[in-house]
Amino acid sequence: MFSFKNDYSEGGHPNILNALLKKNLTQEEGYGLDQHTQNAISSIRRQVGASEADVHLIPGGTQTNLIAISAFLRPHEACIAATTGHIATHETGAIEATGHKLLNVNTIDGKLTPELIEPVLIDHHFEHMVKPKLVYISNPTELGTVYSKAELQNLHDYCRTKNLIFYADGARLGAALMSKNADVTLRDMYSLTDAFYIGGTKIGALLGEALVLRNADLKEEYRYLIKQRGGLLAKGRVLGIQFEELFRDNLYFDLALHGNDMAQHIATELEKTGCTFWIDSPTNQIFPVMENSVIEELSNQFQFYIWAKMDENRSAVRLVTSWATPREAVESFIQAYKKIVIRN
Amino acid sequence: MFSFKNDYSEGGHPNILNALLKKNLTQEEGYGLDQHTQNAISSIRRQVGASEADVHLIPGGTQTNLIAISAFLRPHEACIAATTGHIATHETGAIEATGHKLLNVNTIDGKLTPELIEPVLIDHHFEHMVKPKLVYISNPTELGTVYSKAELQNLHDYCRTKNLIFYADGARLGAALMSKNADVTLRDMYSLTDAFYIGGTKIGALLGEALVLRNADLKEEYRYLIKQRGGLLAKGRVLGIQFEELFRDNLYFDLALHGNDMAQHIATELEKTGCTFWIDSPTNQIFPVMENSVIEELSNQFQFYIWAKMDENRSAVRLVTSWATPREAVESFIQAYKKIVIRN
Amino acid sequence: MFSFKNDYSEGGHPNILNALLKKNLTQEEGYGLDQHTQNAISSIRRQVGASEADVHLIPGGTQTNLIAISAFLRPHEACIAATTGHIATHETGAIEATGHKLLNVNTIDGKLTPELIEPVLIDHHFEHMVKPKLVYISNPTELGTVYSKAELQNLHDYCRTKNLIFYADGARLGAALMSKNADVTLRDMYSLTDAFYIGGTKIGALLGEALVLRNADLKEEYRYLIKQRGGLLAKGRVLGIQFEELFRDNLYFDLALHGNDMAQHIATELEKTGCTFWIDSPTNQIFPVMENSVIEELSNQFQFYIWAKMDENRSAVRLVTSWATPREAVESFIQAYKKIVIRN
Amino acid sequence: MFSFKNDYSEGGHPNILNALLKKNLTQEEGYGLDQHTQNAISSIRRQVGASEADVHLIPGGTQTNLIAISAFLRPHEACIAATTGHIATHETGAIEATGHKLLNVNTIDGKLTPELIEPVLIDHHFEHMVKPKLVYISNPTELGTVYSKAELQNLHDYCRTKNLIFYADGARLGAALMSKNADVTLRDMYSLTDAFYIGGTKIGALLGEALVLRNADLKEEYRYLIKQRGGLLAKGRVLGIQFEELFRDNLYFDLALHGNDMAQHIATELEKTGCTFWIDSPTNQIFPVMENSVIEELSNQFQFYIWAKMDENRSAVRLVTSWATPREAVESFIQAYKKIVIRN
Repeated sequence: MFSFKNDYSEGGHPNILNALLKKNLTQEEGYGLDQHTQNAISSIRRQVGASEADVHLIPGGTQTNLIAISAFLRPHEACIAATTGHIATHETGAIEATGHKLLNVNTIDGKLTPELIEPVLIDHHFEHMVKPKLVYISNPTELGTVYSKAELQNLHDYCRTKNLIFYADGARLGAALMSKNADVTLRDMYSLTDAFYIGGTKIGALLGEALVLRNADLKEEYRYLIKQRGGLLAKGRVLGIQFEELFRDNLYFDLALHGNDMAQHIATELEKTGCTFWIDSPTNQIFPVMENSVIEELSNQFQFYIWAKMDENRSAVRLVTSWATPREAVESFIQAYKKIVIRN
Repeated sequence: MFSFKNDYSEGGHPNILNALLKKNLTQEEGYGLDQHTQNAISSIRRQVGASEADVHLIPGGTQTNLIAISAFLRPHEACIAATTGHIATHETGAIEATGHKLLNVNTIDGKLTPELIEPVLIDHHFEHMVKPKLVYISNPTELGTVYSKAELQNLHDYCRTKNLIFYADGARLGAALMSKNADVTLRDMYSLTDAFYIGGTKIGALLGEALVLRNADLKEEYRYLIKQRGGLLAKGRVLGIQFEELFRDNLYFDLALHGNDMAQHIATELEKTGCTFWIDSPTNQIFPVMENSVIEELSNQFQFYIWAKMDENRSAVRLVTSWATPREAVESFIQAYKKIVIRN
Repeated sequence: MFSFKNDYSEGGHPNILNALLKKNLTQEEGYGLDQHTQNAISSIRRQVGASEADVHLIPGGTQTNLIAISAFLRPHEACIAATTGHIATHETGAIEATGHKLLNVNTIDGKLTPELIEPVLIDHHFEHMVKPKLVYISNPTELGTVYSKAELQNLHDYCRTKNLIFYADGARLGAALMSKNADVTLRDMYSLTDAFYIGGTKIGALLGEALVLRNADLKEEYRYLIKQRGGLLAKGRVLGIQFEELFRDNLYFDLALHGNDMAQHIATELEKTGCTFWIDSPTNQIFPVMENSVIEELSNQFQFYIWAKMDENRSAVRLVTSWATPREAVESFIQAYKKIVIRN
Repeated sequence: MFSFKNDYSEGGHPNILNALLKKNLTQEEGYGLDQHTQNAISSIRRQVGASEADVHLIPGGTQTNLIAISAFLRPHEACIAATTGHIATHETGAIEATGHKLLNVNTIDGKLTPELIEPVLIDHHFEHMVKPKLVYISNPTELGTVYSKAELQNLHDYCRTKNLIFYADGARLGAALMSKNADVTLRDMYSLTDAFYIGGTKIGALLGEALVLRNADLKEEYRYLIKQRGGLLAKGRVLGIQFEELFRDNLYFDLALHGNDMAQHIATELEKTGCTFWIDSPTNQIFPVMENSVIEELSNQFQFYIWAKMDENRSAVRLVTSWATPREAVESFIQAYKKIVIRN
């Protein structure tokens, strides 16, 4: 039964696996000092348009977030995040486990704005409270929404004025950059944040995320911090080769585009039948609202998560596509849906 | 130039890469709930002879150690380790970063004994000092030495009597199990420790270590602890497939044996020329003592680390071989050495 | 200018200072093993009706909370607290600094109920989220409200059913126990919680809080945990003597009663003039709502905090009284208020 | 039975208790913002000769050390200390509990030198090891030995060259400053360290230590860090009044001198009988070596600790005197000793 549950159900893109195979027996330095990692870093520097960018390849996303945030903050400093932010919900308190409080902000669409952050700064005004010091966003958000360049610029300016570190979780960054109407590039992500990461796992790598540091204050002795948290793989080549391939010939962007296209195609076709959506997401995850009976029938043919209860009879489901989703699976879902809905 | 610097210079064993390729596009559950991880767990349970063993696959060794030790201890409890222990030297204070003190014990050969541990327990007798609670060993040790079954039994009995948790770091466990005169099996490692891990990275995996928990008290809610420290890969299949292959048809043991054989062959041949060794190691790392002039000449043809200064004229070097070391490289090293030594 | 800003503006009750003076030059054991601490522990055991209670005297409230909570939890376990809870707002992230997440619950009156806790448990259902394990309440709450025995019983039963630790912050516990209509005793606090503390600082001690542990699982090696967090004073007698005095001849309760009476007398008199209150508090802190012009005039004669803005013209102020508040100060405030209000 | 076990067996100096009593009912600001704390800070600034010094009053010594060290270091940075250092032995792993490794250095007399530190720096040369960043000394050391000004200057210069923070634990600082031949003043302690603390507890305060920060980089937002670790007492006046008194009319120095004199008088008299000492200490703790039979007899009349076994028949005992030790107790001990020794 085909699964639309997430974008990490398959392995890695064939180019990546072939490259791993091809380079397999060459001897390389360990711990990220290999030639492939150096090449990957060069590629990413070119993508962000900055030869001075520091780039570190780290096995997973939770690990990248906890290394970054705990490296950037003094003990009394806290991190502002949307209530729906991944670090605030689905990382088992990884940030707090390094000693730092999260200050959660309620948002409608998963996105932060200066207006939402301002009350937190005003409220936390003295030494009996933590000091807000870092703003965490996800782009796209956990709801599939995307920041525009103007919105990022606005947050960047605000953070600079308020002496806040601005950090972006890009677990699915490709999906944001390649979404319909998107006006943000990797160069923008770099120049508008202090640090961000480019997720590999959800876009065709077997594993691996690339943390990019722009703010010079955050760069110092960073490999110590990665090693201390267990993020330095002995065979760093495994990450290096993957990012080398992802940024060869636009593969990263092509894969992101495919993932988005698959989800958006479903969205467009469902909309034609009158289907509404819990939230408007232009990326590779969509949240159509369906009658519970429809959901039940579809569940016999496809795997997906029921995400939110709308009322007694209707729920929003989450459908996620990826670089690996075959067009046939998508068409087959659309037909199944239409058949059920029209019959009803 | 061929490198004897370590056992992680190459990628993964071809069987592993082929399996990754073959299973690549099948959809699997994420976060270690995939079928391959389940198979790997079953294989390891068979190897240790215990269907109730808890097995967790974790990307790296430092991460495995920090997750294990911080999960096992209350805040005031400390970990006893040899001064040469990996956690005590080359993990950038990862254990302390989770809040726990290491109590270091000086040893000659990197191995702990009840006699070496006893003074630590006697010394730490009240609440102004940490409470020693866990004994950490590496097998083989960082010096390439190996525990006998009697030694492990002795430590096991002692730890049980003293209510200490006994934990073994098996980053290179295969090398110990397959060393000359070895009488320890995976079953013994399981039954004689509370927990241990089977290293994958240094024996032919691209990455991955298998943590095995025997003590039921240590098992509870363990996946929470792995997730919190960033050790749960979304594509857990990547680890599952690798350990599935390592424990198919004795591959794990064959690879360990090859690594040992290569180093021991060098040792035997060097010994014939009168070469002595800094320490007697039966595993895949050896420490021949050479004239500095010999070292210098060899360095023009091979990469390796100078490990310890013996006197003004002589040093011990470290030579490490692995599953991937070609016999030709070894023969070539032996000949080069003999040529230099005989000429001198 | 007399201050109603808090209940720690003065030093200690004369009985306490006299006892410190009288016992001053007798030699005693250090670190809480002195005779006075033993006497204080015995007194508190009698008060809670349990000779097996473990009692520890700790310098401050934030320190008591962080020692207690970090001692009770494993790394992945979290603490549920009201959004207004002291640990959630005014302890500079002390709990998170020990590695644990707080899960905040919005309440109207600062009080938790099983109904408010239940959704947190339902929501946190798997290992990608922290595991809720401890319920923190303050009695009285930070809003001056008080738990009834039935409410505590209800929370106790719920926590037991759900395997949650139930912990009460009693920084101002005396004020709750001696409040109008209160039906909770120290025996109830003991039998209905797993652990709680009896605040000394805000009821006439110079410093010091008494942590009382009922749950046997929480008692083990507790002095290690206090020492590690810097909570074991060399001259533990300083805390011992103070709690010895507080629980001699009902002093603790008399002081609490006085503090409550002073605040409630103000409340009663203000109410007669038609004054309303932001929240109904029966303890030593009250929150009358006043015209801003009235507040301004009163500020010329008394110190107090403006607590919450009601509308353009009116705010709630916080008035806190204590064991040390002279009746004259209270009468003088009432008269000043009436004079201003009537004149207006 | 009179105790020479430590210097915190009695309460506080009468001046301190009288001042607490006299100022008791005046209302003051909380959390160290009271007038007495401000006065104490001014006094200490005058003593160290620097109006820009930051001074914080903290309840206990372990707490002061853990707040200082965890505030000064990034996560991967470690602290160098003598193996006998208080933080390395008798603080229950408090520093490690904040996430930082201690690097222990073996010394004969408890004192560090650049020559002892240098190998640690050389050894810790890359990111797989912690980064040594702070040098911790105690003055006097835990063995009662004292640093000369030249020795401190030497450490200061070395630390500056190597970019290390130099921090001194002054739990018994007065005893060092007032020891025979001492040439170090509070001004020197200030100008030669980045931060140090002046212990109050062991010199006549009921509790309280004064942390003095010179290095401007270490000062920022320090009250947040104190609050977070539970070190900000609501009634900060209790600490303020005590340090106000300690630095009024040289009381601090007079009390230190008395403590030293009492111990040194014993030392001089014992020496006359041929008694030798485990270590030569010019402060208020001395370590005479005695026949075990002598120790046993003395134990019937006085309390003290047996500190180290010399051989089958002889041990070193530790005798500690303080500001509160009566001359009669000292004379009585000397006579008892002489009587036993001469009779034997």
